[in-house]
Amino acid sequence: MTTQKIKVAVTGATGETGVSIIKALLESEEFAVTAYVRPSSTEKPQLQDFKEKKVPIIPLDLEAAPLEEIVKAIQGQDIIISGVMPHTSDIEKKLANAAKEVGVKRFIPSFFAPLAPPTGVNILREIKEEVINHVKKLHLPYTVIDAGGWYQVSLPNPPSGRLDYMTKIPSNAQYGDGHYSTSVVDIGDIGKYVALIIKDPRTLNKYVFVYNEVWTHDAMFKLVEELSGETVERQIIPEESLEAGIQEASKAYKQDPSYKNFVLLLVQQYANQNWVRGDNLPETGTYLGYLLSKDLYPDFKFVGLRDFAKEALDGKAQPVYTTKTFDF
Amino acid sequence: MTTQKIKVAVTGATGETGVSIIKALLESEEFAVTAYVRPSSTEKPQLQDFKEKKVPIIPLDLEAAPLEEIVKAIQGQDIIISGVMPHTSDIEKKLANAAKEVGVKRFIPSFFAPLAPPTGVNILREIKEEVINHVKKLHLPYTVIDAGGWYQVSLPNPPSGRLDYMTKIPSNAQYGDGHYSTSVVDIGDIGKYVALIIKDPRTLNKYVFVYNEVWTHDAMFKLVEELSGETVERQIIPEESLEAGIQEASKAYKQDPSYKNFVLLLVQQYANQNWVRGDNLPETGTYLGYLLSKDLYPDFKFVGLRDFAKEALDGKAQPVYTTKTFDF
Repeated sequence: MTTQKIKVAVTGATGETGVSIIKALLESEEFAVTAYVRPSSTEKPQLQDFKEKKVPIIPLDLEAAPLEEIVKAIQGQDIIISGVMPHTSDIEKKLANAAKEVGVKRFIPSFFAPLAPPTGVNILREIKEEVINHVKKLHLPYTVIDAGGWYQVSLPNPPSGRLDYMTKIPSNAQYGDGHYSTSVVDIGDIGKYVALIIKDPRTLNKYVFVYNEVWTHDAMFKLVEELSGETVERQIIPEESLEAGIQEASKAYKQDPSYKNFVLLLVQQYANQNWVRGDNLPETGTYLGYLLSKDLYPDFKFVGLRDFAKEALDGKAQPVYTTKTFDF
Repeated sequence: MTTQKIKVAVTGATGETGVSIIKALLESEEFAVTAYVRPSSTEKPQLQDFKEKKVPIIPLDLEAAPLEEIVKAIQGQDIIISGVMPHTSDIEKKLANAAKEVGVKRFIPSFFAPLAPPTGVNILREIKEEVINHVKKLHLPYTVIDAGGWYQVSLPNPPSGRLDYMTKIPSNAQYGDGHYSTSVVDIGDIGKYVALIIKDPRTLNKYVFVYNEVWTHDAMFKLVEELSGETVERQIIPEESLEAGIQEASKAYKQDPSYKNFVLLLVQQYANQNWVRGDNLPETGTYLGYLLSKDLYPDFKFVGLRDFAKEALDGKAQPVYTTKTFDF
């Protein structure tokens, strides 16, 4: 008797989340993974490891390809995981249409972000809302997966610059008095959670929030100070300044909806939802209708922030977003 | 020892759903009800019964009143049930802001309609989506309650005109071959379900779908024929005609967003979601994240459609929407 493998298609396979997911899926015998990448991305170094492991890499331009071409490319797949980071909802709506035509068992739209209410707080979350609303109109089986802030972009950097290599995203800002808390997760663990979630009948047509630990900003600064022996300078940003910054960036984006203005607005909105509004907390997740990874998988062996910080300060952590501000 | 009553405010108290809810709440000793009505509605006959039962009737113009006035009017209430039928989301957003300021334990936005996905199918559902998204941004405790099609507007009318008195909404149309099914409910039962739901901790921050039975259009025609002894003519509307009608009405509404065009579009959209798309079914409710009244309250003594139809044909049912096409 042979057990049929679950056929999983991952689009946006070279993105940070896409790589984490494929790595985790490959660790299990249950999945047959196919990676879909932009034709211009087929030679990206992130794919080398997957090529060695004989993962089929399919070039597919989701933006330019007509529906029929996408349908043909994903024919036979059981699960579609979208790892694209769209500036508009059009690409993923088209992918959902194709998934509906193919009759996939589950569609995972590209959420994978800190929690926010559907509208009015985060401009990217609003685009994702358009996608999931389209999925619901299609009556396409789905699971939404959101995730806490990544350790990799959350840790403050000590003055010695020992964490310079980790990311290009500056992270020594502290909003308000530093005692607000937020949920964080190791990006390597996100893929492992996804591998559990997509085969779990309890998560079908549900929202799931994945996180490892809840930390205050103050405690994170103290952790890095303790482990590094250095004093870490805090760039204290009062809540009002953040609010004013969002207003300004929002205005600029309305006047000129460029990619740069989009990112400038988005970064501040994330800070607001993660650190000031308290959106990115397990209890808000429950309020917003999410199942929590802690309840679903209480025995999950996750990497704690303390262990991650030690490794990171020793220069051994995997960097993220090193080439661009955001890998859209 | 005295038990504190749950203080419930009902706005839009003269609407069909508002009346059903207040009637049910008054049947229980647990609730202290206050009815809020437009200043122009204080003398409406629907309120006579409530006045006799000493229900406080508070005139409140939600559209014109500034936030502070609404806050003052609802101060001390535990639960707000909105029965307004807004053409835009502004009124209910303001009411939600007031509810947040007062710190109510639960806000029930004005849903109370057949199931539809959040966007792309029903123009009124889209307005409601704006309201619930605003509620979620406020982190205001809520329960969304939707309900199957009312018996009162679903039964076909036999040629003798014995159901003429029931409603002004024509209901002898049959979409497609009549074998699609939809969920239906007695409007009198909606209030009784609401009285259970608003005090139920399982329904806090959840969506609930309330229905009594699932019927095909064909079976409804046969039921009326059997009970009346008459042959009921079916106005058969092919699915394509409905689709074309929606396209046309949608175009007309975009060109002239008048109330009349709104209703003309809405009526056809309801027909589409109820009878063609299959949105208004318990299984779609589960897909869309709703808890079902049948699961929550399996012992609920509901009125069956057969019993209702008998009563209605005997001229003993309570009419709805008799004065206007829609009681907005």
